[in-house]
Amino acid sequence: MTHPATPTFTLDELAERLGARLVGDGSRQVRGLATLKEAQPDQVAFVANRSYVKDLAKTRAGAVLLHPEHAADCSVPRLELDNPYLGYAHLSQLFDPMLAASPGGIHSSAVVAEDVALGERVEVGPNAVIEAGVVLGDDVVVGAGCVIGAGARIGSGSRLHPNATVCHGVIIGARAILHSGCVIGGDGFGFAHDGSRWHKIAQLGGVVLGDDVEVGSCSSIDRGALEDTVIGNDVKIDSQVQIAHNVHIGDHSALAGCVGIAGSTHVGKNCMLGGGVGLSGHLTICDGVHVTGMSLVTNSIHEPGVYSSGTGAMSNGQWRKNAVRFKQLDDMARRLARLEKRSQQG
Amino acid sequence: MTHPATPTFTLDELAERLGARLVGDGSRQVRGLATLKEAQPDQVAFVANRSYVKDLAKTRAGAVLLHPEHAADCSVPRLELDNPYLGYAHLSQLFDPMLAASPGGIHSSAVVAEDVALGERVEVGPNAVIEAGVVLGDDVVVGAGCVIGAGARIGSGSRLHPNATVCHGVIIGARAILHSGCVIGGDGFGFAHDGSRWHKIAQLGGVVLGDDVEVGSCSSIDRGALEDTVIGNDVKIDSQVQIAHNVHIGDHSALAGCVGIAGSTHVGKNCMLGGGVGLSGHLTICDGVHVTGMSLVTNSIHEPGVYSSGTGAMSNGQWRKNAVRFKQLDDMARRLARLEKRSQQG
Amino acid sequence: MTHPATPTFTLDELAERLGARLVGDGSRQVRGLATLKEAQPDQVAFVANRSYVKDLAKTRAGAVLLHPEHAADCSVPRLELDNPYLGYAHLSQLFDPMLAASPGGIHSSAVVAEDVALGERVEVGPNAVIEAGVVLGDDVVVGAGCVIGAGARIGSGSRLHPNATVCHGVIIGARAILHSGCVIGGDGFGFAHDGSRWHKIAQLGGVVLGDDVEVGSCSSIDRGALEDTVIGNDVKIDSQVQIAHNVHIGDHSALAGCVGIAGSTHVGKNCMLGGGVGLSGHLTICDGVHVTGMSLVTNSIHEPGVYSSGTGAMSNGQWRKNAVRFKQLDDMARRLARLEKRSQQG
Repeated sequence: MTHPATPTFTLDELAERLGARLVGDGSRQVRGLATLKEAQPDQVAFVANRSYVKDLAKTRAGAVLLHPEHAADCSVPRLELDNPYLGYAHLSQLFDPMLAASPGGIHSSAVVAEDVALGERVEVGPNAVIEAGVVLGDDVVVGAGCVIGAGARIGSGSRLHPNATVCHGVIIGARAILHSGCVIGGDGFGFAHDGSRWHKIAQLGGVVLGDDVEVGSCSSIDRGALEDTVIGNDVKIDSQVQIAHNVHIGDHSALAGCVGIAGSTHVGKNCMLGGGVGLSGHLTICDGVHVTGMSLVTNSIHEPGVYSSGTGAMSNGQWRKNAVRFKQLDDMARRLARLEKRSQQG
Repeated sequence: MTHPATPTFTLDELAERLGARLVGDGSRQVRGLATLKEAQPDQVAFVANRSYVKDLAKTRAGAVLLHPEHAADCSVPRLELDNPYLGYAHLSQLFDPMLAASPGGIHSSAVVAEDVALGERVEVGPNAVIEAGVVLGDDVVVGAGCVIGAGARIGSGSRLHPNATVCHGVIIGARAILHSGCVIGGDGFGFAHDGSRWHKIAQLGGVVLGDDVEVGSCSSIDRGALEDTVIGNDVKIDSQVQIAHNVHIGDHSALAGCVGIAGSTHVGKNCMLGGGVGLSGHLTICDGVHVTGMSLVTNSIHEPGVYSSGTGAMSNGQWRKNAVRFKQLDDMARRLARLEKRSQQG
Repeated sequence: MTHPATPTFTLDELAERLGARLVGDGSRQVRGLATLKEAQPDQVAFVANRSYVKDLAKTRAGAVLLHPEHAADCSVPRLELDNPYLGYAHLSQLFDPMLAASPGGIHSSAVVAEDVALGERVEVGPNAVIEAGVVLGDDVVVGAGCVIGAGARIGSGSRLHPNATVCHGVIIGARAILHSGCVIGGDGFGFAHDGSRWHKIAQLGGVVLGDDVEVGSCSSIDRGALEDTVIGNDVKIDSQVQIAHNVHIGDHSALAGCVGIAGSTHVGKNCMLGGGVGLSGHLTICDGVHVTGMSLVTNSIHEPGVYSSGTGAMSNGQWRKNAVRFKQLDDMARRLARLEKRSQQG
C-alpha cells in the first residue's frame, strides 16, 4: 500500500512508551514496523513467537522487540519485554498512520441535524448523515458516507469508518471501532404466522455496545424485539458476522469472521468463536468457551473448554465413499451390537 | 435504547384495533409494550407461549394480551385473542416509533434525477441518490445514503433503510422493507473460461421482488444472467443472506441469517431455511420444506418435511477421536459386512 | 427488469466481433440476447451445453450461436464457434446496457479532494467521496455513494458500483469490478491479550488487487497486519465473501459466495472454492485445487484435485438417528477391531 507519512520515534522514546528495557543506542530513529525478514534499518521488528527466532540473526532491523530469553540471538539494538506480542500491539498503534490523519471538523457536505449534541474535537466526514437527537462524545470520528440514525449515542473516542450505519436509538460505548459496511441496529428477524402469511413483529428494542468494542466490515448486529441486543465491553467482532436480536455477548469475547448467532442466545465472557461458527437460538454458552471454526452448536454449553463439530476436508473420492456411509451409521451401530451379542454367546 | 416518543392508546382502542375481547377498564392508557417481567403499569404485556404463563401472576403490566385459556391466571386487565402471538405482532406495529418518525419530503442534499416518477408522500433522506428513470410508488421512504439505480421501480409503501442499494432496473413490489447495507441487483457470478483465463458473462437479467418482501442488513440478491432472479410475495429474508443469480423463491418462504443459495436453484412456497443453510445450484426444492440450521443441500427435494445434515458440537477431545474415524467409515462398513458374512457362515 | 436501450448489431457485425462463422443473412439486425426458449426474432440465442440442444428445433431466435456439431439441428441463421460458451460471454458484454449508460464527468455533489490525480474520462457519481492523494486511472467509473480512502490507487478501466468502499492506501489494478456494499481494506482482526483484556494490533499493511479482479456485493477483503493482503490477476470473488488479513490468492482463482478465508492462508493459482467453503488460517493450498461447497479445510493441501468435507442433507428423522451415532464412532471402531481380532482367533 501507499503509506501516508508515519510518525518517527527514537529508541529511547519507544522504550519509555512501551515500558521496555532498551539495550543499544537510544538516539537512533525509527519510522516504521516490519517483520524480521523485511525490516529496514529505520524500522523496528519483533519476536512474538518462537518460530521466528531463526530470523533474528540475519535481520537488518534498526531494533528488535523481544523477550529477554532471546537477547543472546540479537545483534542489533533491542527492546526487552515480558510480553513482546503485547508490545507489538502497542508499537503498531504508535505507528498507525490513521492516528496522524485527521482532517478535522465537520465537512461542509455532511448533513447534521440541528439538535445533535457534539463533544469536543468531533470529526464528521464528507456526505455523512447524522440524524436528529444524536449524541456524539469527545473525539468521535465519523467517516465519509456514514449514517447515524435518530437518537443514537456514541461514546467518546469512537471511530466509524466510511459507509458504516448506526440505526436509530443504538447506544455505543467509548472507543468503539466500527468498520465500513457494518450495520448496527437493523431489525431483528421476527414474524408471526396467521396460518397463511407472515405479520411483522416490529423490533422495538435497541442495541447496546459496551466500551472498546470493535465490529468488522460488513457485519450486522440486529436490534432486539422488545429488549436490547447487548454486546459487553472489550468484545471483538470480525467481518461478515451476524448477531441476531436479543443476543448477549459477555465482556472480552472474540468472534471470528462469518460467525452467525441466532436470536436470544447468551454467550459468556472470555469466549472465542472460530470463523464460520453457528450458534442456534435461545442457548446459554458459559464463560470461557472456545468453539473451533465452522462448528454448529445446537445445545447450551455449561462447562468451559474447547468444542468442535464437523469433519475436515479430504479428497473428493475418499469423501464420497465415506459420506455415503454416514447415512448408514445407525444401521451399522445396530449391526455391530448384534454381532457382539452373537460373539459373546458363541 | 433511547426511544423517540411512542404512541399512546386506551385499552378500548387497542381492543378495537386487535379485534380482541377486553376484560378491564377500557379508558386506561398504555404507551408501550414489554415482557410480563419488565412491563410497567403504563405498558402492555403478552403471553404468546405457555412457558411464560408462570410470569402472569406477578406482572405489573397495565394489561396483558393472552389466549382465553390463561384468563384465570391474570389479575390485571386483559385482551383476549385466539392467536396472541399474532396479536403481539399487530401490537408491536402500533407502538413502532419508526411509524411516527417522518421527516417528510425530499431532503435538499438528496440527488434525484430529473425524469424520476415519484408517488404521493414519498420521502427521500439526506444524501440519497435516485438515478434516471426510477419510479417510486406512493408513501415510499428512502433512507439517508441509499442509492437507487437507473430504471428501478419500487412499489408503494416500501421503506429502504439508510445505505441500502437497489441496482439498475430492479423491480420491487409494494410494502418492501430493505435494511441497511443490503444490495439488490449486484451482478451474478458468471464467467466463461478460455482455457487460461476468465471472461465475464454480463448479467443482463434483473431482480424482481414481489409484495411484502423484507431483506435484512447486509444481504445480497444478485441479478440474473439472462432472465430474472425472482423473489415471491411475503418472502422474509434475514441478514447476511446471499441469493445468487436466477434463483426463485416461492411465496411466504423465510430464510434465516447467513443462508446462501447458489445459482438457478428454485425454492418452493412456505419453505423455511435455518441459519447458515447452503443450497447448491440448479436444485428444485418443493413447497413446504424446512431445512435445519447449517445444513448443506446438494440434491433436489421433492417431499415436504424437515431436512438436516452435519453433526452438533461436542468437546474437542471427544470430537478429535470421532472425526478422525469419519475417514475410515467406508472401511469400517466393509469390515463389518465381512464379519457378518463370516459370522453367518460360522 | 426494465432495460435501458440495448445496442443493435447486424449478424455480420456479430460474426466479426466474435470471430464466428456466419451461416445466414448477415444484414439481419438483433438487439438482445436470450435463451433458446425465450428468444424473439430480434434476439440471439446460444447452445453452450448439450442439454439445451433439444430446444434448438423450436427456437424463434433471430440467430443461434453454437458449435458446428449442432449446425444440422438449427433452422435459423447461426454463428458457429468452437467455444460457444465463451462466445456467449463476449456476446453478453456487447449487449450490456451498462456499457452504454455513461452519465459522464464528476457529479457536482461528489466530494473530490484537491490533490486527487484523475485519468482521462473518469466518472464520479453523485455523493461519492474521493479522499486526499487518490489516483484514478483512465476510464475509471466510481458509482454513487462510493468512498475511496486517502492514498488509494485504482487502475484504468475499473468500475466501482454504488456504495462500494475502498479504504486508505489500497491498490487496485486495471479493469477491476467492485460491486455495491463491498469493502476493500477494512482492518484485519488482530489483537494481543494481556491476560485480562484485548489490545488492538493496528493493521499497517494494505490490500493489493491485481488486474481484472471482480469482487461481489457485500464482500470484504481485510488489510494486512504488517504486509499486504494480495489478490492476484483475474481472480473472481462472489458476494458475501470474507478474506482475512495477509491472505494471498493466486491468479485466475475463483471464490463462490459466502467463502471465508482466515488470516495468512495462501491459495494457489487456478483454484476454485465452492460456496460457503471455509479455510483455516496459515494454510498453503497449492495450484489447481477445487474445494466443493461448504467444506472446511483445516490442513494445507499439496496435491491438485477435488476436496470435500461434511455430509449432505437427509430427512430430519433419518439424520437424528445417524448424527447421534457420530459421537460413538471412535467407540464403534474399537469394538469392530476387537470383534475382528476375536473372529480371527476363533
